[in-house]
Amino acid sequence: MDNHWYVGVDIGGTTIKMAIINTYGEMITKWEIPTNVEDKGKHITTDICKAIFMKMDELNEPKSKLAGIGVGAPGFINMETGFIYKAVNIGWTDFPLKDRLEVETGLPVVVDNDANLAALGEMWRGAGDGAKNLLAVTLGTGVGGGLIANGNILHGVNGMAGEIGHITSLATGGAPCNCGKTGCLETIASATGIARIATEMVNENTDSELSAILIRKGKLTAKDVFDCANNEDNIALQVIDEVCFHLGLAIANLANAINPEKIVIGGGVSKAGDILLRHLNKHFNLYALPRVAEGAEITIATLGNDAGVIGAVWLIKQKINK
Amino acid sequence: MDNHWYVGVDIGGTTIKMAIINTYGEMITKWEIPTNVEDKGKHITTDICKAIFMKMDELNEPKSKLAGIGVGAPGFINMETGFIYKAVNIGWTDFPLKDRLEVETGLPVVVDNDANLAALGEMWRGAGDGAKNLLAVTLGTGVGGGLIANGNILHGVNGMAGEIGHITSLATGGAPCNCGKTGCLETIASATGIARIATEMVNENTDSELSAILIRKGKLTAKDVFDCANNEDNIALQVIDEVCFHLGLAIANLANAINPEKIVIGGGVSKAGDILLRHLNKHFNLYALPRVAEGAEITIATLGNDAGVIGAVWLIKQKINK
Repeated sequence: MDNHWYVGVDIGGTTIKMAIINTYGEMITKWEIPTNVEDKGKHITTDICKAIFMKMDELNEPKSKLAGIGVGAPGFINMETGFIYKAVNIGWTDFPLKDRLEVETGLPVVVDNDANLAALGEMWRGAGDGAKNLLAVTLGTGVGGGLIANGNILHGVNGMAGEIGHITSLATGGAPCNCGKTGCLETIASATGIARIATEMVNENTDSELSAILIRKGKLTAKDVFDCANNEDNIALQVIDEVCFHLGLAIANLANAINPEKIVIGGGVSKAGDILLRHLNKHFNLYALPRVAEGAEITIATLGNDAGVIGAVWLIKQKINK
Repeated sequence: MDNHWYVGVDIGGTTIKMAIINTYGEMITKWEIPTNVEDKGKHITTDICKAIFMKMDELNEPKSKLAGIGVGAPGFINMETGFIYKAVNIGWTDFPLKDRLEVETGLPVVVDNDANLAALGEMWRGAGDGAKNLLAVTLGTGVGGGLIANGNILHGVNGMAGEIGHITSLATGGAPCNCGKTGCLETIASATGIARIATEMVNENTDSELSAILIRKGKLTAKDVFDCANNEDNIALQVIDEVCFHLGLAIANLANAINPEKIVIGGGVSKAGDILLRHLNKHFNLYALPRVAEGAEITIATLGNDAGVIGAVWLIKQKINK
């Protein structure tokens, strides 16, 4: 019986999520520390190391109970070496994250992209339910993604696999995207995109509950749109149908190519739940091949913010056991 | 040193391509036998077995020199068991292809989808040049595809991965596809699709070399379009640009998700060569993320009809060596 524990770390621009998790993926404890971006982020590995060892003292357990650390990080990463080429929000340039954490903690470390780890987390303990062919889509401020094929993260040739937010939904006339292109899925299906489309539609048609909200608050959010849609507001339903047409088409096209078993929708927008799933399934089934649609289930992520640290632990555990 | 030989078999509706290939992927000999579809295809495995052993006699080599057989087949296949659920062109329903061939030949057999094996063949000995993340696109009568991720075929949950011909290029108003949907990439970028689009454009605009060909021959082919485009015919160039817009967009969207190193274009249409690559690259680079485009090279397949048997041998060789 394996009594070891593992550490999951999910490094963001403002906070670092941390968790101690056992070999069955059960959460022992989780907490957060602030991300210290001073001096180009050079103190972060020491902060993580101290936080882990203080937590083990607090739990009255020896450090030897820890078998390894899985880390999710943003930016351009070499997943094999755990080297960060560039992480703008943190300040890292050419930062040997894996090597520094291994030296400071004395534990084996694996580093991967945060969206990929969220996909692994959902596969292991969440909505993926063990499905080894899984597409995770995160609908938040942006649109992110992670692909699991045969139980492994698909990294691609230079670590860019899973960038489904930058699938082009509108080849011409689309809104500008942060990536420099226009018409990306992210400009439509992110929380920001949904709010933008709703605002445009309301400006054309004021006969809507959304219109009253826009006048009262001065702006609309994706949550407003789903709330009004649940009240059968016609414009809100049109916005959701428009968004789900583009999202369903993009996911169906991808599914025809990779034939996933589970398609897990996470991120803030996924809290809309059933109404999102219903519209999404409608469009997905129109564009996926029948056998592909039969094989795939679209479902809402269940791990929330814990997906990253749980996926990180799955990855380090798998690496150690190899 | 490994002196064994392997057999590659590529089963089509009218002929079966066969090859004996050494451990380095070098062709010892290749030949074809007719596909006997009588009695629901039940004689095919015996035909293949006889053909192999007669060829070894002819080469004056013992059967023990053969280490295994890789087989490419059409239809719905369980890749793990080599069981064919349905192959309409051959007549097979619930046909245990792998088991029967193993019993008849006494050799280990592996069965996979023909498009997947062509992708593996190009990876090993063709345009893929060893790239372990590769997307193969076959532009023939239809549009097929195979995806290699981390050096392995991506099968997906029920063997449907790689069906990029059925990515929806036109969500509304597209031509009907054999799959039952409309607007599939196959209706545009296949030889058939190119001929159809050219005919439509010529009917609208008769000031074209293509128009003269249509009047003379009564129909247009994809080859006519590329020939005329090479003569700078304006309508032919417009057809190619239209086709490459849809193909480039579909491939770029897929590349943003799977981040391949090589994108290998094969099939009859790929014989158009440079003019196809030029237009395709233009559109691909507009829609792929810069880092994805940097990582990917679009190239024309080099193995032609041998890709399938070579990929089949790679697969059985890998399976035996595991």
